[in-house]
Amino acid sequence: MDYSQTSLEKHKQFKGKIAIASKFEELKTKEDLSVAYTPGVAAVSTLLGQHPELASEYSIKSNTVAVVSDGSAVLGLGNIGPYGALPVMEGKALLFKEFGNVDAFPIVLDTQDPDEIINIVKNIAPGLGGINLEDFSAPKCFYIENKLKEILNIPVMHDDQHGTAIVVLAALINACKLANKIPKDTKIVVCGAGAAGTAITKLLCAYGFEDLIVVDSKGIISKDRTDLNNEKKEFLEFTNKENLSGDLATAMKNRNVFIGVSGPNVATEEMVNSMAEKPIIFAMANPIPEIDPVMAKSAGAFIVGTGRSDHPNQINNVLAFPGVFRGALDNKVRKITDKMKLAAAVALANYVKENELTVDFILPSPLDRGVVSVIAQAIRE
Amino acid sequence: MDYSQTSLEKHKQFKGKIAIASKFEELKTKEDLSVAYTPGVAAVSTLLGQHPELASEYSIKSNTVAVVSDGSAVLGLGNIGPYGALPVMEGKALLFKEFGNVDAFPIVLDTQDPDEIINIVKNIAPGLGGINLEDFSAPKCFYIENKLKEILNIPVMHDDQHGTAIVVLAALINACKLANKIPKDTKIVVCGAGAAGTAITKLLCAYGFEDLIVVDSKGIISKDRTDLNNEKKEFLEFTNKENLSGDLATAMKNRNVFIGVSGPNVATEEMVNSMAEKPIIFAMANPIPEIDPVMAKSAGAFIVGTGRSDHPNQINNVLAFPGVFRGALDNKVRKITDKMKLAAAVALANYVKENELTVDFILPSPLDRGVVSVIAQAIRE
Repeated sequence: MDYSQTSLEKHKQFKGKIAIASKFEELKTKEDLSVAYTPGVAAVSTLLGQHPELASEYSIKSNTVAVVSDGSAVLGLGNIGPYGALPVMEGKALLFKEFGNVDAFPIVLDTQDPDEIINIVKNIAPGLGGINLEDFSAPKCFYIENKLKEILNIPVMHDDQHGTAIVVLAALINACKLANKIPKDTKIVVCGAGAAGTAITKLLCAYGFEDLIVVDSKGIISKDRTDLNNEKKEFLEFTNKENLSGDLATAMKNRNVFIGVSGPNVATEEMVNSMAEKPIIFAMANPIPEIDPVMAKSAGAFIVGTGRSDHPNQINNVLAFPGVFRGALDNKVRKITDKMKLAAAVALANYVKENELTVDFILPSPLDRGVVSVIAQAIRE
Repeated sequence: MDYSQTSLEKHKQFKGKIAIASKFEELKTKEDLSVAYTPGVAAVSTLLGQHPELASEYSIKSNTVAVVSDGSAVLGLGNIGPYGALPVMEGKALLFKEFGNVDAFPIVLDTQDPDEIINIVKNIAPGLGGINLEDFSAPKCFYIENKLKEILNIPVMHDDQHGTAIVVLAALINACKLANKIPKDTKIVVCGAGAAGTAITKLLCAYGFEDLIVVDSKGIISKDRTDLNNEKKEFLEFTNKENLSGDLATAMKNRNVFIGVSGPNVATEEMVNSMAEKPIIFAMANPIPEIDPVMAKSAGAFIVGTGRSDHPNQINNVLAFPGVFRGALDNKVRKITDKMKLAAAVALANYVKENELTVDFILPSPLDRGVVSVIAQAIRE
C-alpha cells in the first residue's frame, strides 16, 4: 500500500505532528502566573544559576532530547536539506513521546559543515538531556558524533548508526537461535559501508561474531583496495580476515547471513541461492529492499527481515531509541557505551519468548509498548 | 506574598513546565506508523526538499517559535547563564502556548559571544516560524537582533525591548487620556538606558511623544557627557533637545511622566513631588520597583504602574508577545516593523473601554484571554 497521499494530507491538515503542552494547570489567577513566571520563577532561576547541576531536577532538561539533522542523508532520499529532513525529525520526536515518554524537539540545520554543526549542538545543549543525531551522511557523521561525545556530558547518539545496530543485532541473535548457529561459526556479509553498516559491523564484532566481510558500491572491502578512505580502512582491522576480493556475488557465496543497508535491488535470487544452508537475509534498504522479500524466500532464504511494515520481521529503529534514551535520562547516563548497546540488543532479543519465536517473528512489533522499559532497564544495568 | 517556595516546589514536582504533545492520534496500527513515519513521511520530505517554501504548510514551522537566551541579563538577576535562564524561557514558552496557542521551545545557549549567537540562531532557523530573543544584555542585544533581522526571513523580536515598549506605550496612551495630556505636550523621563529603555524611548518618539530625556546610572544623557557608547550617543539625536544635564532628581523636575526600567528604589517621594501636576509613574524594575507604588501615590502620583502582579496597573510583556507572534505567524509576516508595534500598542490601549478606564485600570489584566486576538489583528493590518 502507498501511504504517500494519506501522509501528505495528514501533515497538511495538522501542520506537522507535534506541539507544546503545559505541565502546569491552566493559568487562571495572578497567583498561577506568579508561580509559573515572575516573580516566583526568579527563585528557580537563582538556584539554577548557582547550581547548574540541579537543572535536571527543576527544569525540562531531565526529559528533553533534541533530534538534530542537517538533512544530508534523509531516509533513502539523500541530501535533501533541512526542510526535507523536518518531517522525519518531527516523526522521530513523535515516536520518542509515544513510545518512550521522552520530550523530543526537532532541530534542522542550515549548515552541513561538521565543525559548525558540532559548535551549534554544543552551544544549545544546556537545556537538553540528550542529543539524537539523525540522517547525517557518512563519513562526517562519525566525526560529529565522536567530537560531541567528547565535549558534552549528556548522552549523544547517532541513531542511524547505533539504533540500527542494536535492532539488527537483536534480530540476528534470534535468527541464529532458529538456524542453530553460534556467533563464532556464523559467516556474515554486510552490504553497505555507511553509517549503519559501520555501526552494525562493529557491534556484531563486539557481541562475538568473528567472520564478517563488508561490501560497498565498489565491492568487498579488502587490503587490495586502493580507494578506501580512513573510515573504511578501519574495517580491515576486524573484518575479511581471509582478504577476499570481488563483487557482492562473490561475497555472498557460502555465507550464512546477508545484512543489507545499501540500496534497492542490489542482491539477486542467484546470490541468495549461492549462500550456505538456511540463509538469513536482512534487506533493510528503505523503501525498496536490497532484494524483494518474497523473491528471497523463494530463492531459499530461511529467514527474511526488512525495514518495511508490510512484511514480517520489521527491523525498525523505533524498537531501540525510545528505550535507550528513556534509560539514559532516568539514570543520568552520560555516555551510551558499547556495553549498553549490547545489553539493549540482548534484552530486545530476549523480549521475544522462546515459544513465540518463529522464522516470521524474530522481533517484537514496533508498536509493542512493552519494549521500551525492557531496553531502558538494560541501559541501567 | 512571596511565591519563591511554591514556585521551587512546583518546578521540582513537574520537572519544568512544558512537554511535547502529539497532534496525530495515538499510534495503534502499522498503518498509523506508516503515515506518521516511514514510508509515508518520505513523500512529505521529498516535497519539502524540493519546495522549502511549503514547510509552513506541511510541518510545525508555521506555529513554532524558539525562545532563545544566553542568560546574560535574566530578569533583574543579571548574568546568571543558560541554566539560570532556562526556567524563565520555559515560562515564556508556557505563556506563548496558553495565551497565543504558539508552540514555543526554549533554547539556552552555552556561549555569550554575539557573532556565535547570531550564527547559531541563523542555523537552527529552518524549522522555526519565529525567534523570540530574551534576556540578552545591552548593548549586544541590539547588534544580535539587527543582524538576525537582516539575515532571516522569519520574524525576530527581542521581547525585552519591543514587547516592553508596546505595553508601556499602550499604558501611557491610556494614562494620558486620564490626565488630559496630548503627546506633543507630555514631558517624559525614561530611567534606564538598556534594552527596554532604548526601545521604549524610540517607540514613544515614533508614536508622537516629542519631549523625552533619558537617564542612566551616571545621570542625564546629554551632549556634555564624555562617557557615552555609540548606542547611547544615538539618544542625543531624538531626546533631550534642551541638553539638560544632571542627576535623576534634576531630570524629574516638572516632568509629567516617569518611566523606570532600571533598578530598585532609585526614585524618591521628593522627586515625585517635584514633578508637574498629575504625575504618571511607571516603576517597572522587577521584583523591586524604582519607587514603592504606595509611596509614589502618597507623594502625589496620579497614576502608578509597576511590573508586579500584586499592584494595580501591571505593565507586563505577556500582554504583547503572544499576540505579536500569533499575528506574525498567521499572516506570514517576515519582519516586525515599527508600524506594527505602534498598531499593537494602540489596539492594546483601546482594548480598555472608555467607561472602564480609571487611574487603577489603564491596561487589561495579563490573564485576559481576549487580548491576543486584538494584538494579532493589529499586526495583520
